[in-house]
Amino acid sequence: MSKKIAGPEIERLVQLLARLPGLGPRSARKAALGLLKKRQELLVPLSDALKVAVEKIVECPQCGNLDTVSPCTICQDARRDQTLIVVVEEVGDLWALERAGVVNALYHVLGGHLSPLDGIGPEKLNIASLVERAAAPEVGEVLLALNATVEGQSTAHYVMDQLASANVTVSRLAQGVPIGGELDYLDEGTLAAAIKSRRRV
Amino acid sequence: MSKKIAGPEIERLVQLLARLPGLGPRSARKAALGLLKKRQELLVPLSDALKVAVEKIVECPQCGNLDTVSPCTICQDARRDQTLIVVVEEVGDLWALERAGVVNALYHVLGGHLSPLDGIGPEKLNIASLVERAAAPEVGEVLLALNATVEGQSTAHYVMDQLASANVTVSRLAQGVPIGGELDYLDEGTLAAAIKSRRRV
Repeated sequence: MSKKIAGPEIERLVQLLARLPGLGPRSARKAALGLLKKRQELLVPLSDALKVAVEKIVECPQCGNLDTVSPCTICQDARRDQTLIVVVEEVGDLWALERAGVVNALYHVLGGHLSPLDGIGPEKLNIASLVERAAAPEVGEVLLALNATVEGQSTAHYVMDQLASANVTVSRLAQGVPIGGELDYLDEGTLAAAIKSRRRV
Repeated sequence: MSKKIAGPEIERLVQLLARLPGLGPRSARKAALGLLKKRQELLVPLSDALKVAVEKIVECPQCGNLDTVSPCTICQDARRDQTLIVVVEEVGDLWALERAGVVNALYHVLGGHLSPLDGIGPEKLNIASLVERAAAPEVGEVLLALNATVEGQSTAHYVMDQLASANVTVSRLAQGVPIGGELDYLDEGTLAAAIKSRRRV
C-alpha cells in the first residue's frame, strides 16, 4: 500500500504477516483481510495465542525444543529411552519424527546446519551442549537425523568428529528409495545410495 | 501433531495459523516455527499488531472499509470526489484500486457477492445502505467495480436494479484485453468483450 488508505495499523499487520515463511505481500494482504473479517473466530483467538506464545513458550535449555515447560515435556518424560539422543537440525524436524511416532527417545536440536557462507559456524549451533550430553554415562547412542542435503550431511560429519572422544555409538538415518517412491522419479544420488546400501533378502 | 509433543499452546497456534487464507497445516507449522525462532523481531511485534487490530480496527459504518477511525479515512477525506461512489466486493478490492491510485472517490464495500447456494442473499450484503447513500443529492454516479466473474456480474445486475429509482448514473468497469495481454493467452469471453466494445481510433 503505497498510499495511506487506512492508517498505519493495517499496513503494519500486513508487513509483519508478509515476513512469515510461506507468505508474500499478496497473500499477507489476504491473510490480514481474512483475520479482520473473522474477528471473533480468528483474529481474537490468534491474538490470544500469540500473547501466550510470547509469555510462555521457551527453548528447552537441555535439548533446544520449544515448550511451555522447562526442561521440555520430552526431556522430562521418563518413559523415553534415555540411552538414545536423536539429533535434528530444527524443531520442525523433531515434530516430524514425533508425528511419525517412530522413535521414543530424547532429542537434541542443533538450531540449523553449518553454513560458512552465511556465517553459521559450529559456535552458532548447539553442538558443544550435545557433546556434553553425549558424555553422560547413561547415553549409549547418538542418532544423527539431519537432512540428507549437502549442508545437513557436512554438519553431520562435523558433529561426528566432535563426538569421537565420547564413548557412544554414532549412527545416521538409512538412505535409499522412499516408501512409495517410483524409481523413474528418483534422482541419481538416491538411486546410487539405494544400490550401495542394498540388502540381502 | 497427533501426539502431545510440546503442550497445547503451540498446537493451538499452528491450528489458528492454518486457518489463515493461503496457509495449510504444513505451512502453518513452518510459520509457527518461524515466529518462535524470531521472537523479538517477529513474534512480539506481530502479537502487538494483532492486539492493536483487535482493539482499534473497525468496519466503517458508512462504506464498509476497515480502519482505526470511524468513519474511515477515505470517507472523511474532503479532497475526494464526493459525487462518485465506487462499489467493490471486498476491502481487498478497495486496496487494489487505492494501490493503483486510479480513482479519487468514495467507496462502498458490499462485503462479498450474491451466492444463493451459499445462502448469501441481498440482505447479507451492504446493498440497502448503498441505495440510501446513492439517494443523497451530492452523489451523481455509482461505479460498479465488481469482479468480472459470473457472481460479480450477477451481483452487479442486482445492484443496478436496486439503484434504478435513485437519480444517479450507474456505470461499470470496461472489459477487454488487459494491458500487456497477449491475445493467444486470453479466453474467448475476454476476446468477445474486446471485439464487442471496440473503439474507433
